[in-house]
Amino acid sequence: RRLVGRRGAASGVITVLAAPGTVLPGVGVVLDADELHHLRVRRVGAGETVRVLDGAGARAIGTLEPAGRDLVVQITSAEPVERPADLVLAVGAGDKDRFARLAEQCTELGVTHLVPLDTERSRHVESRIRDSHLDKLRKRAREACKQCGNPWATVIEPFAPLEVIARRHPQLRWFLADPGGHAMPAVAADDGVAWAIGPEGGFTPGELEVLQGTLHAERVWLGPHILRFESAAVAGAALTLDRRASGVGDR
Amino acid sequence: RRLVGRRGAASGVITVLAAPGTVLPGVGVVLDADELHHLRVRRVGAGETVRVLDGAGARAIGTLEPAGRDLVVQITSAEPVERPADLVLAVGAGDKDRFARLAEQCTELGVTHLVPLDTERSRHVESRIRDSHLDKLRKRAREACKQCGNPWATVIEPFAPLEVIARRHPQLRWFLADPGGHAMPAVAADDGVAWAIGPEGGFTPGELEVLQGTLHAERVWLGPHILRFESAAVAGAALTLDRRASGVGDR
Repeated sequence: RRLVGRRGAASGVITVLAAPGTVLPGVGVVLDADELHHLRVRRVGAGETVRVLDGAGARAIGTLEPAGRDLVVQITSAEPVERPADLVLAVGAGDKDRFARLAEQCTELGVTHLVPLDTERSRHVESRIRDSHLDKLRKRAREACKQCGNPWATVIEPFAPLEVIARRHPQLRWFLADPGGHAMPAVAADDGVAWAIGPEGGFTPGELEVLQGTLHAERVWLGPHILRFESAAVAGAALTLDRRASGVGDR
Repeated sequence: RRLVGRRGAASGVITVLAAPGTVLPGVGVVLDADELHHLRVRRVGAGETVRVLDGAGARAIGTLEPAGRDLVVQITSAEPVERPADLVLAVGAGDKDRFARLAEQCTELGVTHLVPLDTERSRHVESRIRDSHLDKLRKRAREACKQCGNPWATVIEPFAPLEVIARRHPQLRWFLADPGGHAMPAVAADDGVAWAIGPEGGFTPGELEVLQGTLHAERVWLGPHILRFESAAVAGAALTLDRRASGVGDR
């Protein structure tokens, strides 16, 4: 935890992002053009110590070494971090820019999977997110690792209906934001949790039937007003962290 | 509550925003150019029923009536909503676009006051919010009333240091997001609550001394990673609503 503490961020050690699975002791970790550019801008060069994350659980410290005209990282200590319990946000596929920002926030909040939902009422949103935007979202979610210190980037899954998400992630406990719902109940630290966040105008009665009848989603109160999707998503994720931490009594 | 329910938003009744304090029975409520434009675009005209909010606690139903080439609203029923207990977010004055989006989210989440904090580490942010942006934020916070149904727009206060905020709002219970903190404690439904959200790099030791020594801020855990200011702000607001709702046992 000390590696990623708030005061750590001010300590001046740069964090670089490696391709998933490439952070191995004894192997020079190759950095992509964006990372090399970032180091040049920050005037960080050979011989300096950097933190390394790969967005897939690797967390390491290494030293920059020259490799031709580029730099590689020689790993000096690595501390892989176990994959956290599922925290899935299934969010009505609304405005693409707000969705991209949400992808970043998901990594900050430890959301494991963000899935754009193709809902009846999001089909009419002109600026809605589409398949072609998903790679940009994946990049935003991975970039956020450097800022927030999370060694696990949120996985951005392809568009899917609720039933498919439930098959991909069995054993999830589903929650549904609703001004008529109750306070979020306690969950265990390792309970898989999913939130269904509707599009503008909400889920249709048919979609609610799937959520409540098939997925047994519990209605949770997130305040008395109608939240936009990214506010509901962040509130749901924050409450989940809170409940998981209370569930085990001690972190 | 039925007026602002999620299903209400899909029912087709338009919400218009009036100037604060102008929503009075028996007086035609004058709408500004933006609102009149919005009605024209939505093809809503004389004789139709609208909801009216003024961002300062008025919540009413009225009928559009012609007034020369414009429209006014004749109020048919009004139900003023009491000002909620203080929920103040004092947020390091970071990027202006992200701050503007946060202003909207504050109204959605029932934040009563958003104050940009002039902190030592936010002074170096090139794109930071400045005095000249505050009017735009106020407009965003008021516009959000229509979307979310909150009759109280978040008040955007001028830049202030922590001590001045505390003098403006005495009796606040202060919280500080910290990965080393504890779960947020219970608060009563009518407790005034304030969150201090640091800039990128966090508060300086001197600023923390004011927060903890003078304002007795309690450190609260919002997850293990470093949150950007708008994620921390939304998470803090969501937890506050949750704790206030549990505090009274029943909403």
